[in-house]
Amino acid sequence: MKKYNFSAGPSILPQQTMEETAKAILDFNGSSFSLMEVSHRSKDFQAVMDETVELFKELLEIPSGYSVLFLGGGASLQFCMVPFNLLERKAAYLNTGTWASKAQKEAKLFGEVVEVASSKAANYTYIPKDYTIPTDADYFHITTNNTIFGTEIHTDLNSPVPLVADMSSDIFSRPVDISKYALIYGGAQKNLAPSGVTFVIVKDEILGKVNRPIPTMLDYRTHIENGSMFNTPPVVPVYAAMQTLRWLKANGGLDAMYKRNKEKAALLYNEIDRSSVFKGTCQVEDRSLMNVCFVMTSEYEGNEAAFLEFAKERGLCELKGHRSVGGFRASIYNAMPIEGVQALVDAMKEFEKKIAK
Amino acid sequence: MKKYNFSAGPSILPQQTMEETAKAILDFNGSSFSLMEVSHRSKDFQAVMDETVELFKELLEIPSGYSVLFLGGGASLQFCMVPFNLLERKAAYLNTGTWASKAQKEAKLFGEVVEVASSKAANYTYIPKDYTIPTDADYFHITTNNTIFGTEIHTDLNSPVPLVADMSSDIFSRPVDISKYALIYGGAQKNLAPSGVTFVIVKDEILGKVNRPIPTMLDYRTHIENGSMFNTPPVVPVYAAMQTLRWLKANGGLDAMYKRNKEKAALLYNEIDRSSVFKGTCQVEDRSLMNVCFVMTSEYEGNEAAFLEFAKERGLCELKGHRSVGGFRASIYNAMPIEGVQALVDAMKEFEKKIAK
Repeated sequence: MKKYNFSAGPSILPQQTMEETAKAILDFNGSSFSLMEVSHRSKDFQAVMDETVELFKELLEIPSGYSVLFLGGGASLQFCMVPFNLLERKAAYLNTGTWASKAQKEAKLFGEVVEVASSKAANYTYIPKDYTIPTDADYFHITTNNTIFGTEIHTDLNSPVPLVADMSSDIFSRPVDISKYALIYGGAQKNLAPSGVTFVIVKDEILGKVNRPIPTMLDYRTHIENGSMFNTPPVVPVYAAMQTLRWLKANGGLDAMYKRNKEKAALLYNEIDRSSVFKGTCQVEDRSLMNVCFVMTSEYEGNEAAFLEFAKERGLCELKGHRSVGGFRASIYNAMPIEGVQALVDAMKEFEKKIAK
Repeated sequence: MKKYNFSAGPSILPQQTMEETAKAILDFNGSSFSLMEVSHRSKDFQAVMDETVELFKELLEIPSGYSVLFLGGGASLQFCMVPFNLLERKAAYLNTGTWASKAQKEAKLFGEVVEVASSKAANYTYIPKDYTIPTDADYFHITTNNTIFGTEIHTDLNSPVPLVADMSSDIFSRPVDISKYALIYGGAQKNLAPSGVTFVIVKDEILGKVNRPIPTMLDYRTHIENGSMFNTPPVVPVYAAMQTLRWLKANGGLDAMYKRNKEKAALLYNEIDRSSVFKGTCQVEDRSLMNVCFVMTSEYEGNEAAFLEFAKERGLCELKGHRSVGGFRASIYNAMPIEGVQALVDAMKEFEKKIAK
């Protein structure tokens, strides 16, 4: 039986990423040494780092004047690195979920924080749209995809101040107009690589404007000047990212990926909207293409565990919703084939027949 | 031809670590999913984290009252995390090399720093021993092994104030009296795992004594409270660390490892001291068991490239010394078999015969 992994992250990656990384761990580039034991200063690993940066720039069409970095510590470390580097007086934050809220909390240690809008009172079921960004803010921070609640900002916003985005869970899912952003960051463990590496895309000219001293490792300029090699980078996750990006390019790049992601999401949301057993949890226009959250209709409440078991028997794994939402969450990142989504839709239909009143 | 990797880090790891990690990347615990795509909140990964912590405690005989953490960002991030959490007014640092010096530099952002002694003027060829630790310092920081210069502090020092040690390149090479330390940290990429995970062993009672606000991710208490799972940990490196620790335990633990390491180092240093072509760079009693630095005697200077080539033809790789020292550096971490060291000694003897004047 073919099994499908709907985990929210760490999550499904292309088969090629797994296979090539496993191979390189046994023998890197025919050297007879493991990828895990080669010096990050070696010519062969420098080539990996260079290709990963180049593929980032090519696939996302990153304009000149931006640097691409690979760091440790996760997106959560960026929650404090962003204000450390950018917050002189005041920052604006849009509160669209748990991670957005955590990012905002860290900024408060560094200066004034204006929450321009929040959907917290509605359990983050929508993306606020009617708000004003203070023009004297040092930056405006958004979380483009809310992994836990299943909402997504589908367009590149216009901001009167530098726009900073956490794109942990939707980077590489669609073309992005990078020029609208001053800084984009994210953990790799959704669409890119195993956990342990964080990407940062930063417009060089926004740096160096705050007066506070910044610890060396928390200063983006350190990593720009050293090509992400100020200290030993997470070699295995960077190598895996390169493999995923090669796969992305070979499969048509971001236009093709976006088309597939819209098809996959439409297939699943259509079933959720049609079914008498399931219903979506978010405002329709804000629904995420990556994380599809749904619950049982009131008529069928109490059958959640039975459906999870029913799905698991069919090889459909990790569908349990986050405790903040309940019900179900199907994460359908780039590497999830449409066959996996179809199998889930089929199981939902079967289950409906089985328990229909 | 059997090849040996003498790289200073990332560096040789047990074959089992490579093989088992590669296997798990293809299929983790028979789940048919990759180690790279499983949720860090899954029961199976929690078991990996738990076993890794337990093996740390068992092999190092860590007393109660200490926590073991696995974080991202490398030892370099610890250079600022240590003073963030511990430096209220004044800290003492021993300057024994490049990394010790970098650690000290970061502390200066947080308070007064007293350099109790330095061997910089002698290009760090020895470990200063005659110094006074100010009894009003918040802590005393040492780097137990100096990877670049090949010196090592061979005993667990007595300190009148909390002792903090960077053990990046000699952790697990010998038994350590943990009770003498308040905090030990290190990058994993020498004796433990691939790069991307940093271990921290911290005495719980030393935390919470500074008045400054600490960003959540930089506060050790965050990671203690969340069992290193506040955010997604570097799953693959942690898994690899578990495999290395299993290997360590199966091979007799730290007493056996220490005995082997002393034998390996003696074999190599004896040849260096005997040879007319090579000579050591460090004061004899401070020579590292992990990183053996040597250069050519003045009579044979200029033959460095020829020896590196000669060694490489015999499968002896990554022997070039760091640019701060020149010559050669043989890193002979736990996973380097004595056969590798013997092969190097044989090559040194052969080379001497070849070029002897």
